Amino acid sequence: MKQEQLLLKERPNGLPDKNTFQFKEVEVNEPAEEEMLVKTLYVSVDPYMRGRMSDGPSYVAPFEVGSPLQGGNVSQVVKSNSDQFTEGDLVTGNLDFQEYNVVKGDQVRKVGTNGLSPSNALSVLGMPALTAYFGMMHIGEPKKGETVVVSGAAGAVGQVAGQLAKKAGARVVGIVGSEKKAAYITETLGLDAAVEYKKGNVSEQLQKACPDGIDVYYENVGGEISDAVWPLLNVFARVPVCGAISAYNLEEGEQDIGLRVQQFLIKSRVKMQGLLVGDFAEHYDEAYQALEEAVANDELKFEETIHEGFHAIPDAFLGLFSGENIGKQLVKVADKE
Amino acid sequence: MKQEQLLLKERPNGLPDKNTFQFKEVEVNEPAEEEMLVKTLYVSVDPYMRGRMSDGPSYVAPFEVGSPLQGGNVSQVVKSNSDQFTEGDLVTGNLDFQEYNVVKGDQVRKVGTNGLSPSNALSVLGMPALTAYFGMMHIGEPKKGETVVVSGAAGAVGQVAGQLAKKAGARVVGIVGSEKKAAYITETLGLDAAVEYKKGNVSEQLQKACPDGIDVYYENVGGEISDAVWPLLNVFARVPVCGAISAYNLEEGEQDIGLRVQQFLIKSRVKMQGLLVGDFAEHYDEAYQALEEAVANDELKFEETIHEGFHAIPDAFLGLFSGENIGKQLVKVADKE
Repeated sequence: MKQEQLLLKERPNGLPDKNTFQFKEVEVNEPAEEEMLVKTLYVSVDPYMRGRMSDGPSYVAPFEVGSPLQGGNVSQVVKSNSDQFTEGDLVTGNLDFQEYNVVKGDQVRKVGTNGLSPSNALSVLGMPALTAYFGMMHIGEPKKGETVVVSGAAGAVGQVAGQLAKKAGARVVGIVGSEKKAAYITETLGLDAAVEYKKGNVSEQLQKACPDGIDVYYENVGGEISDAVWPLLNVFARVPVCGAISAYNLEEGEQDIGLRVQQFLIKSRVKMQGLLVGDFAEHYDEAYQALEEAVANDELKFEETIHEGFHAIPDAFLGLFSGENIGKQLVKVADKE
Repeated sequence: MKQEQLLLKERPNGLPDKNTFQFKEVEVNEPAEEEMLVKTLYVSVDPYMRGRMSDGPSYVAPFEVGSPLQGGNVSQVVKSNSDQFTEGDLVTGNLDFQEYNVVKGDQVRKVGTNGLSPSNALSVLGMPALTAYFGMMHIGEPKKGETVVVSGAAGAVGQVAGQLAKKAGARVVGIVGSEKKAAYITETLGLDAAVEYKKGNVSEQLQKACPDGIDVYYENVGGEISDAVWPLLNVFARVPVCGAISAYNLEEGEQDIGLRVQQFLIKSRVKMQGLLVGDFAEHYDEAYQALEEAVANDELKFEETIHEGFHAIPDAFLGLFSGENIGKQLVKVADKE
């Protein structure tokens, strides 16, 4: 049986484009003993993947040119030689971007059949939601009455981060790139205010939206938007640094130049801390439980922007950098049997 | 009786100069009940005072134009109506820059007569040393075998911070501005290497001096020197942000522009945290004890650069920004009786 695979064709310099990707037809392998064959239903495209497309030191090994890209995946077990899973089970893991994968039981985790869509395992119950949880609850630690600002507030991580802060009793302001997203975060998610960064002076808008200053800034975007945040940080503010999407596509030799933070950190004794979800592995159970409960109680709304078909992966990925998606950007590859 | 006082003449725009300061002859007041008259022996000049010379929000109230400047001070009690102190006692506190002050007992702290110079209460047993202690031990937390970099390593805070990291078993590299300072930190203080930032490419020098990357960066200076540090930070590195002297004298409307840190914080999950010594008030006893022990055991060397005479205060202060001083910059105003 043949299948499609998505390879890294060449390393992008700056913004990736169509030349970054290549589709290839390959044979589907048979699962050996203790292995299973799983069929891709959904794949996740995430900004951090941009980092893996470049060579050089990073927190995850770079993708290899000519090898499959890889990312969050929900699959259904087609054939199982493993004791842990049976045919029809839904599983999630970090797998090669292809229509079928041969995996061992410990490479994937079972997706609960809690009445939600399988895609949710990649969004509100997946890596971006965990990232939002740890950044907000373990580093940001919002308190009742504090002001929390979330950038990329309508994105996969931001939509969860903002609502977690609301749940903790904070006043939450989201920074977004369009009127549609502003309506989404205030009306659907229930945040207190939206700042549209494309609508003029971010500094002034933020000052208006945060008359009492900022106690927690959940950083997803970097760049000039964040430069406008630093002067507004209150004493003992916390800044979980989760992403800096504005800096992911710098060209070779380009540097991310802007306002240095040191003075603001001293003046207000701010703690700024970078995070990766994997560092919190020992707390995954706590986070899954909190997120599942919140979803079940309808306290955690979310959107997914779903492209259709394996060949839509490049477009879905590139859309992350033009700010098209609301909520989690996913690609649906096949229907559940 | 008449005395000299040092006033803020006008707020500096950018680097302070002679016009920032004004001397004035005023009457010495008599101490009322429970007050005492103390005679200034030493005053401390510190970079943070630059912040108080500007108007606008900061962590301490700005100095008032036409009012005395204020700072660390060691005085001797001349006349006491307080039960807590008697004539001849040495005391330290944050007092007006004048030859005599009338103070209450709770405005000052007794200086021990441990065979050290009274000036030491403003240097190795004073505020800069406490700042070094809390930044390094409570935020930096250097571990055996780690690489620690200290900028401003020959300065009042840096000289203590570097040695505390050595004592904790780290390999310590100091960044300094002259050959004389490089010799001081490696030969006298016993640090492992010195980077002279005026001697060419700081990035290359740092890479050579830190082949295993940087686990703790004690930030005293900001600017381009620190920009060269960020790419070298190891996973889970800690950055206590104590000072950013390069940014203290920006002119009105000028911004501190350089390399944004977010990408480096994410990549290596770095914690960067601003500190002020006053935030650690509940731990002062612990710090004083540690510092006194280290001095007594000859494990903590230090220098003081002492200008002579009350009228030398402006020059001593301005010298901080031209990098003249080694160790703590002080002014000796009078001899101990």
